[in-house]
Amino acid sequence: MSISSKNRIPLRGIIPPMITPLNTDGSLDIQSVEKLIEHLISGGVHGIFILGTTGEFSGLSYNLRRELIVETCNRVAGRVPILVGITDVALEESISLAAFAASAGAYAVVVAPPFYMNIDQQELCVYYEKLADAISLPMYLYNMPSHTKLTLDLATVIKLSAHERIIGLKDSSAHGVYFQSLCHAFQDQQEFMLMVGPEEMMAETVLMGSHGGVSGGANLYPKLYVALYTAVVDRDFKKIKTLHACVMEISRNIYQVGDYKSSYLKGLKTAMSFAGLCQAAFASPLYIFSAQEEAELRKRVEKIEVMLKENELV
Amino acid sequence: MSISSKNRIPLRGIIPPMITPLNTDGSLDIQSVEKLIEHLISGGVHGIFILGTTGEFSGLSYNLRRELIVETCNRVAGRVPILVGITDVALEESISLAAFAASAGAYAVVVAPPFYMNIDQQELCVYYEKLADAISLPMYLYNMPSHTKLTLDLATVIKLSAHERIIGLKDSSAHGVYFQSLCHAFQDQQEFMLMVGPEEMMAETVLMGSHGGVSGGANLYPKLYVALYTAVVDRDFKKIKTLHACVMEISRNIYQVGDYKSSYLKGLKTAMSFAGLCQAAFASPLYIFSAQEEAELRKRVEKIEVMLKENELV
Amino acid sequence: MSISSKNRIPLRGIIPPMITPLNTDGSLDIQSVEKLIEHLISGGVHGIFILGTTGEFSGLSYNLRRELIVETCNRVAGRVPILVGITDVALEESISLAAFAASAGAYAVVVAPPFYMNIDQQELCVYYEKLADAISLPMYLYNMPSHTKLTLDLATVIKLSAHERIIGLKDSSAHGVYFQSLCHAFQDQQEFMLMVGPEEMMAETVLMGSHGGVSGGANLYPKLYVALYTAVVDRDFKKIKTLHACVMEISRNIYQVGDYKSSYLKGLKTAMSFAGLCQAAFASPLYIFSAQEEAELRKRVEKIEVMLKENELV
Amino acid sequence: MSISSKNRIPLRGIIPPMITPLNTDGSLDIQSVEKLIEHLISGGVHGIFILGTTGEFSGLSYNLRRELIVETCNRVAGRVPILVGITDVALEESISLAAFAASAGAYAVVVAPPFYMNIDQQELCVYYEKLADAISLPMYLYNMPSHTKLTLDLATVIKLSAHERIIGLKDSSAHGVYFQSLCHAFQDQQEFMLMVGPEEMMAETVLMGSHGGVSGGANLYPKLYVALYTAVVDRDFKKIKTLHACVMEISRNIYQVGDYKSSYLKGLKTAMSFAGLCQAAFASPLYIFSAQEEAELRKRVEKIEVMLKENELV
Repeated sequence: MSISSKNRIPLRGIIPPMITPLNTDGSLDIQSVEKLIEHLISGGVHGIFILGTTGEFSGLSYNLRRELIVETCNRVAGRVPILVGITDVALEESISLAAFAASAGAYAVVVAPPFYMNIDQQELCVYYEKLADAISLPMYLYNMPSHTKLTLDLATVIKLSAHERIIGLKDSSAHGVYFQSLCHAFQDQQEFMLMVGPEEMMAETVLMGSHGGVSGGANLYPKLYVALYTAVVDRDFKKIKTLHACVMEISRNIYQVGDYKSSYLKGLKTAMSFAGLCQAAFASPLYIFSAQEEAELRKRVEKIEVMLKENELV
Repeated sequence: MSISSKNRIPLRGIIPPMITPLNTDGSLDIQSVEKLIEHLISGGVHGIFILGTTGEFSGLSYNLRRELIVETCNRVAGRVPILVGITDVALEESISLAAFAASAGAYAVVVAPPFYMNIDQQELCVYYEKLADAISLPMYLYNMPSHTKLTLDLATVIKLSAHERIIGLKDSSAHGVYFQSLCHAFQDQQEFMLMVGPEEMMAETVLMGSHGGVSGGANLYPKLYVALYTAVVDRDFKKIKTLHACVMEISRNIYQVGDYKSSYLKGLKTAMSFAGLCQAAFASPLYIFSAQEEAELRKRVEKIEVMLKENELV
Repeated sequence: MSISSKNRIPLRGIIPPMITPLNTDGSLDIQSVEKLIEHLISGGVHGIFILGTTGEFSGLSYNLRRELIVETCNRVAGRVPILVGITDVALEESISLAAFAASAGAYAVVVAPPFYMNIDQQELCVYYEKLADAISLPMYLYNMPSHTKLTLDLATVIKLSAHERIIGLKDSSAHGVYFQSLCHAFQDQQEFMLMVGPEEMMAETVLMGSHGGVSGGANLYPKLYVALYTAVVDRDFKKIKTLHACVMEISRNIYQVGDYKSSYLKGLKTAMSFAGLCQAAFASPLYIFSAQEEAELRKRVEKIEVMLKENELV
Repeated sequence: MSISSKNRIPLRGIIPPMITPLNTDGSLDIQSVEKLIEHLISGGVHGIFILGTTGEFSGLSYNLRRELIVETCNRVAGRVPILVGITDVALEESISLAAFAASAGAYAVVVAPPFYMNIDQQELCVYYEKLADAISLPMYLYNMPSHTKLTLDLATVIKLSAHERIIGLKDSSAHGVYFQSLCHAFQDQQEFMLMVGPEEMMAETVLMGSHGGVSGGANLYPKLYVALYTAVVDRDFKKIKTLHACVMEISRNIYQVGDYKSSYLKGLKTAMSFAGLCQAAFASPLYIFSAQEEAELRKRVEKIEVMLKENELV
């Protein structure tokens, strides 16, 4: 990566954290990968992020991760930037995956903290710096304390942002004060991209000046999230109200079937299987809904789709 | 309380969680109470909330709490509504304080969950219902998981909102998804007031349709918070940007001196003492800054005030 | 309190955290208080601790707490030492309760950290020192992080142990390393009493050299816990095995009916009501078992009692 | 794996979680592996556990893990049983590592829960069952909530213990009630091995009937831990007191230099480097002590060794 990392125009908009389409035997469902990519791009997304939490990266073998990187890069073929999650507990494996992503044509990598050992902010800084030094692609930080047990403190982010290859941060903490603190700290460095994870917060955070959202629901309904993003940019509050209400209905209904800590992901992927975008197949330790849960989800999805059709979003 | 609780026009705007002015011997600093109330009302606040977390309710004796209720009600004399925190671990003490607040002329009470015993949502519902049945004033729920170890789940709030005396909720969780979920659930019940605690989130949440903020910094600079609230209502984005930046500078500088879990409260109250609004005196277990910390704070406050003067906000 | 605090012979043995017998209207059930005290003393306990977590202190009004202190002191009449919980969030209320306990004839007070404000170890030290300076009775520290959100660090305990009135600690953290660290740090100061809260850990910790246990189950079956303590002191491993197994059966069966965070307390007090030792009445926010849960508990208690009868412990 | 898994005589005693000797470039320090293994075996340990948390498994590349498995199995050559950690977030990688360990001659594998996705107990059960079905070696469960964010509930352990290949559990929770509950639940199934992680709890838990300890300090001073284990088995309380005090001194001094969450591991490995047993080299995200911290550690180690020499344990 040349010095130009920081000179790039930052991404803005909706960058879905792509689910990983799997066959029921755990192998990559390549046909669905292709179909899903077309669905996303035709929906107007501004980038694609693979191998994040929604992409179930942690449950996938390294071989499968590599296969997905290649398939995605080939299929997208430069139409939108591809961000690749390389989060791991072993630095060497992250470095190796980053090199692979670079050679496959990815735009950037995304890295959450190593998530087994309990470490402090200084150890975290050293870790990120070592990693950034050892790779060639630009890097986004990824704050995900519910999964990594560790928050990237504001001071840590500021310190790391000085590295030529660290160009932004995705925050999935859902912590509103934290995110506003980030936005304020980088208000004069608009080239440092700040994206919010939870789609329920996308409208408000972009209204306040951030760059966009890594909205899981955009896997299913990319047009909705892109339209909401556009309405926010346009400050069209009537539209914002309508479209944000759709997003909240999805959150309330599709992501809350059963009493799983992973109800979001189970609901999303299963609803996508209804639409023929993938199979309802998960990497361990997740597994499919019961028949009753699936039936409940189907009813809910139908109601959502009525609402979306009224707004010409599906 | 008559049926009219739910028919009241909900409060909107800035309702500062008033700090409790103390003398260095721990007694109530009545002179400062009076001065502070005039400062707040002349600053345009839409209500005053006493005996919240910022009011250090937990560290005050019952006698002092009662004294503060009387002094506040007498001094305000109906100019703005007074909300009184009655959070306690013993139901009977909360009921007794609520009766006292009612007789003193308070507008409503505010109640966080009992915070010693570990309980579940159903036990919490029963608790709130018992309390609401036993008092005469309208009640706001108060979500404050960092202090109570317990979140008021959305389903719990919805259930409790059916009680005639429960008229709104103050959320200090800083959890952006949670707050948007509340707003969405109550989008057709605008009479149920939703206020956000952290002032860093006030602008964005009111932009998205909530009622206002219980902004601690409004103790010190009420005009700033009222002006930001007004700019948000007016969707004046140029002003929002400027004023929100001031709020964030206060957050970043005044609330983060020293490495205390209570740096927010220590910074706020000490900065207020610089302005002659109260003394720098705290209820146990908090205590005053070191001389060095105080000097650091003073420098920071001076910078903030330059910024505020430029915007004619002090 | 004279200098003699530290020269007292430390308590050793079983000191039950006495449940607070209540009437269904929430008032103190004085008749049961008397009956329970006789039950405990005839069971051989080495002291009685009132107004702890098991005593539901947090849910009781101050009037009731005072009433219980007087009743207990009068009834016990010097037969065993009485420890009184004075934990509160307001320092002034703790001081006032300590003075009351002293005048009623209590042996010592027990104090967990103030549990609303989030504070650090230094603030905690200052708090305890202020409190210890302001009272006349000896004081036990009470580590209870699941309820107070705060652990008394080893260094804090060592520092506080220098205060002439601080004579020991009750640890309810269930953290085995923490407790062994305490025991090691005070191995040459046997006058500093170290008691473990969870009865499941009583045998092993006394085996390793600590002073005793604040065993909740001793409310119900004091002879069992006293016999186990004695067997441990005697290093009678055959008896230890048998009696510890009884304790574990109680833990597994009586304390785990329903899925409450307070199943321990609900189970204990309800089982005691079967034995006529108190009524099944709780202070808010707790409430009684459903009929089905109660029936389940009754079956379990019957099995336990068969086991205890075989060992002549009831 | 034949039915014989459950018929094996369970391991008992001290099974050190072997640190992984590294060169400063991150590669495996094979010479130290050999030296360390001889040190452990001549110290009398009853087994060796590689690739646990103390072995920094999470920071090691798969190639290095495989290299270590081969080296260890070859060097030990059947003198003591070898347990191999195969914990991972991707089921497929765990299965693959288990097959490798089996072919290299390991005795059993050890598996903590997958530690990225947040899952519930049922998902955890399914995960473990899938894994146990897919491998040939016996398996120990590994409870390590501070690192995995997830406790193996007692009911889960009981359920999983029915699997023919699941033969025991290592508990590193430091939760005394949890461990006693396990011991009680399996009191009539002594073939299910229960080992405690924290060495500070080894003496007391073996006194109460468990099988042994996975004591980190046994990397450095195997004779001490073996002698303490033997004293416990012999119920020689005079020796227990002396040797347990040594263990606690190690805990207090060697494991608490600096203010790292990993002070235990940094202290242990650095102290081992003083003894020439390995280099002071860590896998990312950990790194070496500052010169000052190292000097402090050296002083402390010298004191410890005086104490150990007095007891002929080094």
